[in-house]
Amino acid sequence: MDFELNEDQQAYRASARAFAEKELMPNAAYWDRQDEFPLATLKQAAALGFLGLYIPEEKNGLGLSRLDSSLIFEELARGCTSTTAFMTIHNMATWMIAQFGSDELSQQWCPGLTRGELLASYCLTEPGAGSDAASLTTSAQRSGDDFVLNGSKMFISGAGSTQVLVVMARTGAPGAKGISSFLVPADSKGISYGKKELKMGWNCQPTRAINFEDVRIPARYMIGSEGAGFKIAMQGLDGGRINIATCSLGTARAALEHATTYLQQRNQFGKPLSAFQALQFKLADMATQLTAARQMVHLAATKLDAKRPDATLHCAMAKRFATDAGFEICNEALQIHGGYGYLNDFPLERYVRDTRVHQILEGTNEIMRVIIARNLLQTP
Amino acid sequence: MDFELNEDQQAYRASARAFAEKELMPNAAYWDRQDEFPLATLKQAAALGFLGLYIPEEKNGLGLSRLDSSLIFEELARGCTSTTAFMTIHNMATWMIAQFGSDELSQQWCPGLTRGELLASYCLTEPGAGSDAASLTTSAQRSGDDFVLNGSKMFISGAGSTQVLVVMARTGAPGAKGISSFLVPADSKGISYGKKELKMGWNCQPTRAINFEDVRIPARYMIGSEGAGFKIAMQGLDGGRINIATCSLGTARAALEHATTYLQQRNQFGKPLSAFQALQFKLADMATQLTAARQMVHLAATKLDAKRPDATLHCAMAKRFATDAGFEICNEALQIHGGYGYLNDFPLERYVRDTRVHQILEGTNEIMRVIIARNLLQTP
Amino acid sequence: MDFELNEDQQAYRASARAFAEKELMPNAAYWDRQDEFPLATLKQAAALGFLGLYIPEEKNGLGLSRLDSSLIFEELARGCTSTTAFMTIHNMATWMIAQFGSDELSQQWCPGLTRGELLASYCLTEPGAGSDAASLTTSAQRSGDDFVLNGSKMFISGAGSTQVLVVMARTGAPGAKGISSFLVPADSKGISYGKKELKMGWNCQPTRAINFEDVRIPARYMIGSEGAGFKIAMQGLDGGRINIATCSLGTARAALEHATTYLQQRNQFGKPLSAFQALQFKLADMATQLTAARQMVHLAATKLDAKRPDATLHCAMAKRFATDAGFEICNEALQIHGGYGYLNDFPLERYVRDTRVHQILEGTNEIMRVIIARNLLQTP
Amino acid sequence: MDFELNEDQQAYRASARAFAEKELMPNAAYWDRQDEFPLATLKQAAALGFLGLYIPEEKNGLGLSRLDSSLIFEELARGCTSTTAFMTIHNMATWMIAQFGSDELSQQWCPGLTRGELLASYCLTEPGAGSDAASLTTSAQRSGDDFVLNGSKMFISGAGSTQVLVVMARTGAPGAKGISSFLVPADSKGISYGKKELKMGWNCQPTRAINFEDVRIPARYMIGSEGAGFKIAMQGLDGGRINIATCSLGTARAALEHATTYLQQRNQFGKPLSAFQALQFKLADMATQLTAARQMVHLAATKLDAKRPDATLHCAMAKRFATDAGFEICNEALQIHGGYGYLNDFPLERYVRDTRVHQILEGTNEIMRVIIARNLLQTP
Repeated sequence: MDFELNEDQQAYRASARAFAEKELMPNAAYWDRQDEFPLATLKQAAALGFLGLYIPEEKNGLGLSRLDSSLIFEELARGCTSTTAFMTIHNMATWMIAQFGSDELSQQWCPGLTRGELLASYCLTEPGAGSDAASLTTSAQRSGDDFVLNGSKMFISGAGSTQVLVVMARTGAPGAKGISSFLVPADSKGISYGKKELKMGWNCQPTRAINFEDVRIPARYMIGSEGAGFKIAMQGLDGGRINIATCSLGTARAALEHATTYLQQRNQFGKPLSAFQALQFKLADMATQLTAARQMVHLAATKLDAKRPDATLHCAMAKRFATDAGFEICNEALQIHGGYGYLNDFPLERYVRDTRVHQILEGTNEIMRVIIARNLLQTP
Repeated sequence: MDFELNEDQQAYRASARAFAEKELMPNAAYWDRQDEFPLATLKQAAALGFLGLYIPEEKNGLGLSRLDSSLIFEELARGCTSTTAFMTIHNMATWMIAQFGSDELSQQWCPGLTRGELLASYCLTEPGAGSDAASLTTSAQRSGDDFVLNGSKMFISGAGSTQVLVVMARTGAPGAKGISSFLVPADSKGISYGKKELKMGWNCQPTRAINFEDVRIPARYMIGSEGAGFKIAMQGLDGGRINIATCSLGTARAALEHATTYLQQRNQFGKPLSAFQALQFKLADMATQLTAARQMVHLAATKLDAKRPDATLHCAMAKRFATDAGFEICNEALQIHGGYGYLNDFPLERYVRDTRVHQILEGTNEIMRVIIARNLLQTP
Repeated sequence: MDFELNEDQQAYRASARAFAEKELMPNAAYWDRQDEFPLATLKQAAALGFLGLYIPEEKNGLGLSRLDSSLIFEELARGCTSTTAFMTIHNMATWMIAQFGSDELSQQWCPGLTRGELLASYCLTEPGAGSDAASLTTSAQRSGDDFVLNGSKMFISGAGSTQVLVVMARTGAPGAKGISSFLVPADSKGISYGKKELKMGWNCQPTRAINFEDVRIPARYMIGSEGAGFKIAMQGLDGGRINIATCSLGTARAALEHATTYLQQRNQFGKPLSAFQALQFKLADMATQLTAARQMVHLAATKLDAKRPDATLHCAMAKRFATDAGFEICNEALQIHGGYGYLNDFPLERYVRDTRVHQILEGTNEIMRVIIARNLLQTP
Repeated sequence: MDFELNEDQQAYRASARAFAEKELMPNAAYWDRQDEFPLATLKQAAALGFLGLYIPEEKNGLGLSRLDSSLIFEELARGCTSTTAFMTIHNMATWMIAQFGSDELSQQWCPGLTRGELLASYCLTEPGAGSDAASLTTSAQRSGDDFVLNGSKMFISGAGSTQVLVVMARTGAPGAKGISSFLVPADSKGISYGKKELKMGWNCQPTRAINFEDVRIPARYMIGSEGAGFKIAMQGLDGGRINIATCSLGTARAALEHATTYLQQRNQFGKPLSAFQALQFKLADMATQLTAARQMVHLAATKLDAKRPDATLHCAMAKRFATDAGFEICNEALQIHGGYGYLNDFPLERYVRDTRVHQILEGTNEIMRVIIARNLLQTP
């Protein structure tokens, strides 16, 4: 057992930190306020490989492990939660194409995706199929050499500003086994986008519903085999959960740093806040919780890297634990800042708004508990 | 002991509920989104007496008890948290004038305030004096028949849109006993207002800093006697804490109602969410917590009405308990709604943003614990 | 609304407090250590009416309300949790006889029970029917003028030392409606008792299983009508839940008093523990939680006294809230005492052991949530 | 980074598990009930090296790392919490002698200690010096070639049944730097023992106060240099905290296993408890919390093994987190068992009683927070 970073990992981390401090941190508040999707910055991130971290090198990615990727994403999320969260979704969708798509398909699309010339969205959730994703009704019907898609998707990150959609659609019978995955060009005829959703946070990435009306795509755009779509989607999510948990880690670390500095610098009742024991204890618990969350994420990442049978269990535990901890730490850091924490001039209230959705997406934390319990009890 | 509402109280409540459902609930989301201070609606509220609930009848108020007022505010907050919160602050400031101001002063100002022709702000907090309010440095120096104010205040609700400021300023030595209260016309020469703060929530009431530069007011505008200002401010806050706790109650009740309906109507995995035991238990705990919070608020209100020596203790306990419970209930209700809870189309995320500040203002919940512990341990 | 005690209530409370301080408090540790059921003290309690508090006067009880009874039980539990808990169970069983038994039956047995010449046990739970009480299998078969009981009961408080058993048994079809209640003399032929259970706490009252083998009792010993047994048992439990919640209140109050004193008297790092802010905050939260719990219990008691339709809901909420709060307060008080809290020389660890079972019995706190959710969601 | 066990570690673990299942698990309840200190079993444990796990080989120990030791202690604690906890204290005290004692001293005593012929107690706490250990007043005065000890110690595990005492005593000025450590033979003239304390748990190891009245020991029995005693005691405790945290891990794992089995086997309302979602979620959270706790312990152990400057911080975080988690998991497992959980026939209530003290000793969890905050805030 060994918990130290090797030299490569230290280098990745340093590079990500530098990028985060230079390009993300100074702009995050502005992007949030303006609902601006920072496309130029994403391009810069791509130049450093951040849009293809765990994509194999032969598919133009960096070929890093999930653990390495988590180290990088934590640094980036410390700079901007929402931008980093989008990068992780892009990585997840791109990985699905690289891992399960045909050679032809992945060679066609992955280079553009890893270079940031194209951005990708992951399209699973539907208005009537949230936690119960396997009940989705968007259909993909075979028609000659094509598939024709009909239906609608909801809560799609990046939708309207991405070029590639990874869409789970029903090609067969009801249930998980009737679902296939497709790469759908975002400008295909028959696709229309809903209004840009007003959200509590994650404002610097657009979220929209997508409607598919007789959208025709070549059959070779299927990712993996017919009927394998749900399994592929879930494998994508195993990594996605580590990623989103990591976004909570990075944000919580930023919140903890702000809280520490504030306690040291703010005086009340004739002494620094850091001299008040109840605040000290709060900070101690925040740091402890963050450390535990990071360990959970790293453990899950190594399980996934090693393709352990309990990887899914650990990804679910890490996601549940780290996203809960992340929100609570940000929320406590806000409280420590008093009235200032409530103002948009300080980043705390943004951290709270941004991390809040991590407890909901990539499977709600309730669904995480379902997955964990099923593993423990060996029930179907 | 008796926990039932009498007929009058039922009538007050019904009238407040009707107003809330007709005037507040349909507009709250819009006001939040537009940062609109609903002045016309406040006038309507004044017409029903809501801007002078616990102001004595002889000062043109309704002369209700704090308990009656809490019943009304709970209904109003169910309609719009932030608008109601402003009404409670207006009531608090107006009450300070009515209760401690000279007859002349209160007869001059209270009618306009209770009629909603004038709105009031409570000005205690300063950049360097938040939790440690008694260390405030805004000065009021005697100059002939006037006082001249210099200094600045922060986080002032309504500032820039109110006509009356109740300002705590130093007229004597350092510490609590050197502070006096003043009624300051908001358009007095030498007053300037800071930018409208961007906040996490409470968007439909403006918050600004206020600067006082040689602001001259007549000496008879002092509220209460010289040196009594801190005590008066704290007495105002006892009631203010019940009020803000009540705003959490009303909002949490709205959140609970939404969550209940959502569980009954949303289907996943082939059955309504209400059939899932873990969600049932969550709802049960939310309702239990809300009931306990309401009891704490009612108990504190009756203590204040009866001028019990432990009223301050109970106001602090009620504020701490109800504002924590309120935030948690709203936050759980958001979670129950999944992705929908995160969207501004649904009220849940607004409830979370709005109730968050209740844990901070009118004395942070940390300061509440200081007050409670001091009472229990009989320490100074 | 009114939260004050009237003069009668103050007098009851004073008398109960005096008894608790004189007879219970000095002996509780000894009884716990020795597993001694304090029969003589129960007789003394009966002399003051404590064994028939809410039994109607015409049945030889004091005829007090549930609220009055709760005020008294809180004082008693402050003296000895486990002895008081037994008194509350005795009250519950006696009330069932008084309320639902025939005049003849109640006149025959109630005087002895309220005078403490006889003690009563409540026999509902079975090895295979805990939370799912309605699935009980102990049978009572009609045989001429008698009923013949067969089956077994578990976790019966007082069993082996009581003279009267109130037994729920199946007289009809499966389910709740096939159950009837019976008064069974504890020395009836065919009754045998299991070993005295070794428990975590509640050591001063014996707990045993009871076996019924062809136990013959007169048909007139049925309490209420045939098939009404489950409903009667549940009505008993509504009050029982207030009672047991009250036992948590009284114990938590004792724990809080000890913790307060300890903080004031123990010095570390050159000052009293009461000077440490984190400990102050802990104490503040304990007191707040206790106050909220008490309000929940009083509210539920008045609902039950007024026979409100939501009484069962409120009894469940009060039981859940107050028994959780009670345990947590005792547990925090133990922690405040450090190593001393872990020693049997101090009462803290006993408080923790004794209040722990309140979260389990009279319906586990999970079952309370089921009841609450069912009420909120209007599901069957 | 690597979270896998190597082959040696797997072998250690297997051997410890076998011993625990054969020698500890079947007897733990009996030892608890009878207050029996299992001396014969400790001898057996010594034969496997468990009484000298992290003692260097040249001092007759196994020379394992703290991480390896934790893997072993977790298995043992799963069998008997209290016996294992004593072994960890014995290891800690023995390590202090081996690490800081002179060669002569350690060669004289360590072989007997690692072989289990001698047992050791760690004597730091005093009646007036608990959390504030550096204020201890037991004195050791130089007298020729000897030191003469006077004073008293409290809460000493094993006292009265151990042969070796590692005693911290004051040889110089007030404060931490005036303290030295000594090896004191437990049968030295002038030592007397207090009564065997009655405790909530940890019943199979005796706890007593120790009085020193003119106890004369050779000067060469000093462990480390004069004035280094407090630092040595704290270095011992770094490891002691990992150990006690590990005892919580092992016990919580046993509790989780019992809860899982119970949920699978117990039926209520016509289905296994494992079919109830609220119980599933409870189990999921318990398992997640346990996994996080284990990661914290392993991380701290590797930090200590690598002598990292932040090792003390991580030991404190691990102790705080894992002992809180351990108690809560055991307590939830008790709750899942309902009434059975409260009975001594099942191990759950013992787990709760035994793990409760882990939150208090080796530095209370409040003191852990002080240590953590001091590290974070870089305050003295």
